Formats: sequence, C-alpha cells, structure tokens
Amino acid sequence: MVEKIYITYNDVHKLCQESAVKILSDFEPNLMIAIGGGGYVPARILRSFLKRAGSPNIPIQAIGLSLYEQLPEMDPKSGTSTPGAVEQIGHRVTRTQWLDLSSLGGMENLVGKRILIVDEVDDTRTTLEYAVKELEKDVEAVRQKLGSTEETRFAIFVLHNKDKPKKGTLPSSIMTEHNYHASRTVDDVWICYPWEALDIEEHDELARKQTNTSGSAN
Amino acid sequence: MVEKIYITYNDVHKLCQESAVKILSDFEPNLMIAIGGGGYVPARILRSFLKRAGSPNIPIQAIGLSLYEQLPEMDPKSGTSTPGAVEQIGHRVTRTQWLDLSSLGGMENLVGKRILIVDEVDDTRTTLEYAVKELEKDVEAVRQKLGSTEETRFAIFVLHNKDKPKKGTLPSSIMTEHNYHASRTVDDVWICYPWEALDIEEHDELARKQTNTSGSAN
Repeated sequence: MVEKIYITYNDVHKLCQESAVKILSDFEPNLMIAIGGGGYVPARILRSFLKRAGSPNIPIQAIGLSLYEQLPEMDPKSGTSTPGAVEQIGHRVTRTQWLDLSSLGGMENLVGKRILIVDEVDDTRTTLEYAVKELEKDVEAVRQKLGSTEETRFAIFVLHNKDKPKKGTLPSSIMTEHNYHASRTVDDVWICYPWEALDIEEHDELARKQTNTSGSAN
Repeated sequence: MVEKIYITYNDVHKLCQESAVKILSDFEPNLMIAIGGGGYVPARILRSFLKRAGSPNIPIQAIGLSLYEQLPEMDPKSGTSTPGAVEQIGHRVTRTQWLDLSSLGGMENLVGKRILIVDEVDDTRTTLEYAVKELEKDVEAVRQKLGSTEETRFAIFVLHNKDKPKKGTLPSSIMTEHNYHASRTVDDVWICYPWEALDIEEHDELARKQTNTSGSAN
C-alpha cells in the first residue's frame, strides 16, 4: 500500500513562507508563472511573502497544463519503448491556458526577466519539463526578434519533490541550489493536499496523527 | 476603527464546500474563470467540490485584474462627479492576463456555456463589473461571428460580499439567487484572508477569539 501523507493548509502556508526567504535571496523573481490548478494556492501564498515593503506585488501569470499519463509509453505493436519518447513528451501534456502578456508589454517583456515557475509537486517532472521547454522556446523567439542578448532566467518552486525516477528532465541551469526550490523532498508517497479533502477536519486530524512527519512543516 | 474579521483556511475550505452544493444545483458551471490573485485559492478548492464522480474536472481559466482605486473619481478641476464615470470604470481596472482558449476550441467555445466567475470578495464590485462586461463583450462578438443564438450564462461566486454601497453594478440577470453566490454577506469590515497572514498560528488564534463570527464558516 502506498503511504499517504496529509498536508494541512497551514503546512502549505508555512512551507511557502519558509521557502520565500531563500527564493528572495537566491533568485529575486520579477514574475511568477503558476501552473494550474495545483500551482494556484502556493503561488497566491508565495506572493504575500515575496512582496517587499514599498514594492508592488510580483505579477502572477497562470498557465494550465493537463497531463495525460494514460497515453502509452510503449509502442503497442512492438512492445518496445517508442523511439523519440523524449520528443513526444509534448503529446502527453495539453495546454489549457498559456501566457497572456498583451497588457504587460507583450512577450517581449519576458526577455531579461527572472521567472519563477510554481507548482504544488514535482512528481514525474513531465509537466515541469513541458512548461520550461515551452517557455524557453517562447522567450528565445522574442529574444531573437528583438536581437537582444539579455538572458531570461527560470527557477522552479514546488511544495514537494518526490524522490523517484523522473520521466521529465530539467535543464542543468535550473537544477541548481539557487534555481530549484522544493520546500520538502519526500519519498514516492501519496501526498494528500488540503484542497482535495472532503472532510477538512478529519484531514487535519490525520495530519496530526501521522507518525512520519516528513513533508510536514512542523 | 474598522472592524477586522479573520478567516482561516479551513473557513475558506468549508465556505467553498458549502456553496458548491448550491452552485451545482442552481447553475452547474462548465467553466470557471478565476480572477487572480484573490480568486486562485477559492477556485482551486471549489473545483474539488464541483467535480462530479466519473466526470473530468471543470476547467479553470485565470484572468488577472488590478484595481486602481487611487485614481480620482471626482473631476479635479470642478470638484464634481465626472460625467460618464460608469464608462470610465474600465480605466480603473487594468488587465494583467485574459482568457486563452486557443487550446480549448477558441473563444467560440464560450458560446452556450455556463461560466462561473470566481473571486474572494465582492467589495466595491468594480472588478466584478469589469470582468462581467468584458467577458460578455467577448462572448457577444464570437456569438455574432458564428451567427449563433445560443445563450452564454454567467454566474458569480465570492467567499464574502460586503454589505455596502457598490461602485460597480452587475446585470440583473446575474443578481439572482441562482446566479450570484456569496458564501457570506458581511458588514463593511476588513477581511483578513489567511494567505496574507504573516503569522498563520496567530491569525488562527485571532479567528478563534473573534466574538463576532459573521463571515466564519462555523
């Protein structure tokens, strides 16, 4: 049986609060991109803690990505791995919403920025790989159009990273201490986030009782 | 001194859970539009409770709106109300992100849909008026392009409606029992949402202590 860990809202809040300190000192983002729906809650909380006194809020753009894990990863005919599976990763992720910077100076405005991509969990890494690749592609296109040499930097924040073999990969420029921020690294467990709880009191009670407190902010 | 009320995350969760029952029976949305950043958390929670067994999640589109309340509402020269202030409402709201339905069949896909607009609070109603007007405009444009007679219905969900004179107005088609859903109606108080709390334990303690429990889910 897969072990379950229960995360309360206050855990999520404290994880964001704790990580914000490091994100501010390591990366200082000027734009957040929240991957919906899992990234919505952490992104909103994080915004409170990334705000510097006297400065405006860091803008959040939401993107929507759906992962179709049910699609075959093996060639149904030969039974072997499909060649070019890495290139096919895009086929397993569907965009439901993408950036809209038309009121923020257009996509050109991404050039030279420090962009923090926010999701709740780094599980198979497939969604994150897709998001980073597509965003880098978009930025590269406008950078070339502008003839700019300014660099755009990406970083990632997730509440939990699952310590497991990943299907997706992230550029080595992101997988650094300063650019990859997971509040907690956990085993390959079933993470029960509070926004999915049908009985939030019982959920909190289970969180209090869990003996394995990895993943908890306490 | 303006009275403050403290809302815990579990309050927010329960308010969404409670309202979802009514929203499902009254409106049955097939798309949610979350007004960011305040609408992100309620929209994500609401999605859990609007999901019907065996059906996919209701998609969420995020839009970003910023309210510039500091802009003058009086003509600075004459000191009188600016004529056409209603038309000027758009000038006090700035879009930071808008719909992107390019992967969901385009804006045409809005025609004939039941769309639930989600925000955390109905305060001056300015943002909600802007959102509804602009969305209706977009829908009307594609409806005419398609020559469709199908109606698109809008409804609103907010955690709290402040009982105060509103600057914005909503169409009478929305201000009905079935289409306007505020989990709680409160006086014109200062609502402290948990995602803004610098000390979430203290915030919860203040919520527990507050004698006036209007706005609380308990």
